[in-house]
Amino acid sequence: MTTFWSEMVKRATPYVPGKQMDGENILKLNTNENPYPPSPKVFQAIEKELKTSLHLYPSPTVDSLRQAIGQLYDVPKEYVFVGNGSDEVLAFSFMAFFERGETIIFPKITYSFYEVYATLFNIPYKQIELNRNFTIPLEKLFQAEGGVIFPNPNAPTSLYMPLQDIVEVLEQNRHKVVIVDEAYIDFAEQSAVKLVEKYDNLLVIQTTSKSRALAGLRVGFAIGQPHLIEALIRIKDSMNSYTIDRLAIVGAKAAINDQQYTKNTINKILQTRRWSREKLREMGFSVLPSQTNFLFAEHYLYDGLTLQQKLQDMNVLIRHFNVTPIENYIRITVGTDEQMELFFKKLQKVIEEM
Amino acid sequence: MTTFWSEMVKRATPYVPGKQMDGENILKLNTNENPYPPSPKVFQAIEKELKTSLHLYPSPTVDSLRQAIGQLYDVPKEYVFVGNGSDEVLAFSFMAFFERGETIIFPKITYSFYEVYATLFNIPYKQIELNRNFTIPLEKLFQAEGGVIFPNPNAPTSLYMPLQDIVEVLEQNRHKVVIVDEAYIDFAEQSAVKLVEKYDNLLVIQTTSKSRALAGLRVGFAIGQPHLIEALIRIKDSMNSYTIDRLAIVGAKAAINDQQYTKNTINKILQTRRWSREKLREMGFSVLPSQTNFLFAEHYLYDGLTLQQKLQDMNVLIRHFNVTPIENYIRITVGTDEQMELFFKKLQKVIEEM
Repeated sequence: MTTFWSEMVKRATPYVPGKQMDGENILKLNTNENPYPPSPKVFQAIEKELKTSLHLYPSPTVDSLRQAIGQLYDVPKEYVFVGNGSDEVLAFSFMAFFERGETIIFPKITYSFYEVYATLFNIPYKQIELNRNFTIPLEKLFQAEGGVIFPNPNAPTSLYMPLQDIVEVLEQNRHKVVIVDEAYIDFAEQSAVKLVEKYDNLLVIQTTSKSRALAGLRVGFAIGQPHLIEALIRIKDSMNSYTIDRLAIVGAKAAINDQQYTKNTINKILQTRRWSREKLREMGFSVLPSQTNFLFAEHYLYDGLTLQQKLQDMNVLIRHFNVTPIENYIRITVGTDEQMELFFKKLQKVIEEM
Repeated sequence: MTTFWSEMVKRATPYVPGKQMDGENILKLNTNENPYPPSPKVFQAIEKELKTSLHLYPSPTVDSLRQAIGQLYDVPKEYVFVGNGSDEVLAFSFMAFFERGETIIFPKITYSFYEVYATLFNIPYKQIELNRNFTIPLEKLFQAEGGVIFPNPNAPTSLYMPLQDIVEVLEQNRHKVVIVDEAYIDFAEQSAVKLVEKYDNLLVIQTTSKSRALAGLRVGFAIGQPHLIEALIRIKDSMNSYTIDRLAIVGAKAAINDQQYTKNTINKILQTRRWSREKLREMGFSVLPSQTNFLFAEHYLYDGLTLQQKLQDMNVLIRHFNVTPIENYIRITVGTDEQMELFFKKLQKVIEEM
């Protein structure tokens, strides 16, 4: 019964997100969520907004939130676009900057949604193989016909690309947009946002879902020069006038403004990441040097799929990607210390029984 | 600086929503919002959800909300798609069912976003002129090459098309999707949802923004046979896994389930609509027989733009469309009795001073 489907629906190859299982006894380390709650100021802001005007449309321009994000990065609000999660910002960016008939470039091992967007919008793409150490071969990102997109740090490898390398990619693509998807940047060295003033072809995309613990609220954003932001606004205003609801606007704004809380949360996660990485190594894993809130690891004996499935049988969710050359790896979200201790207890049991 | 813009951005002609002015003394009758707050159960549900898991992603499939909507209309959840406002559902529907190179049909005077979507996605369209009494000439909707879309009741005319006419449109377009956009249906005779079981080419789109007073929360939905819903899901999952945040999911569900509250609110608005229409007539307006939460009216002496601007100077917002043949009309959202009394006091003053 696909008679009524457009060509677009027919060629679509939808993204499959990590499982969202509910349940009391599930240890959920599979979708890179923040294990801590968001800032208490988020709750205060939402509770206040809730009492006023849910029957009225939200701001279509979301200026107050754009301003708050701008202040964080010391740019005017005209440099900021806000969307319904960074996935929507990414989708709009594919629509705004990439073209049918012009091949874009992204790594073969990366956020798998890029391929989904490109397929949906009929944008040709070239996926470049990673180096053997899983870093991205820089020169392969040069002179793209249609543009470049990659996450920094990359997912699911967790590896960070230094800013001087990003500068090279920007220099070697002066006439095409380079999108740096910084979903995990707050757990890494530094953001490319500081390059935005110099490079009119740079769009940086971030989210409040990870470091700010607002995955449930759906707010992502992009930072770039106003001509890029204007393009995103034109797409958004041709799709949906109001993409961020009233509660998400005030909640995200409160989270952005409570930078001290965010820093504390990040520090806790970095600390847990450190000892968890060591612990994994002791258990026979090689672990990439993560600059994210997850660890990407390969056991010297056991394959990734088996580990993932055996852990799932014990109510522990982690993620496995059935793709060469990472099929032996597992991706583990860094939880709280308590969660990770429980994780290691279960992992120990799985390994002992193998 | 449009060098970096895709062809899609360049041809986009973004929608311009009604003004969202804030301020204590503004009487806002310009965006067809519900003047009453949503059900108290909405607040309870959101407050409860707020305390639990904002740091976790929401359900990507939104099954609980789809189920609630399904129960309301006595269809399984496989007949229901949920999106970020009915605008997003409309955008996804254009992507899912309409095709480049196949002309779709919609009325010339109608929700102006249809033209925006068609332009964005390069879908050719034919806009049919309304009859002199502003009804839609039925036979002009027959045998569409690419599909049909119209609101029922139509906006901004406020006029309702009876179900037997919709059946004719469906019969005369057996091989193309007919989208009936029922944003205002709860203020009208009856929904076309009951035709969904019989017609595999019918998609009905509704919203929680109007009758359920949740414009600030962004939840719209579509009802149709599972093959149509599956197409929408494929588009959504190729754009953004989680379009509805945790608070919006539980809030909308609570609103859908509190059908008694919704009915009471609608009845109050219908009562206010009745006397407001009479009052407008007494003041020299001809007013179309509205089946929506707004009134569409033309004064026998004064033109619409002047009235709208003079009212705006007095902090009263209504909407005017600078399009033939409705340029003399004004669109007034039905507020509370108190709001409408204030509106008529200000309107009286405007007219006296002209």
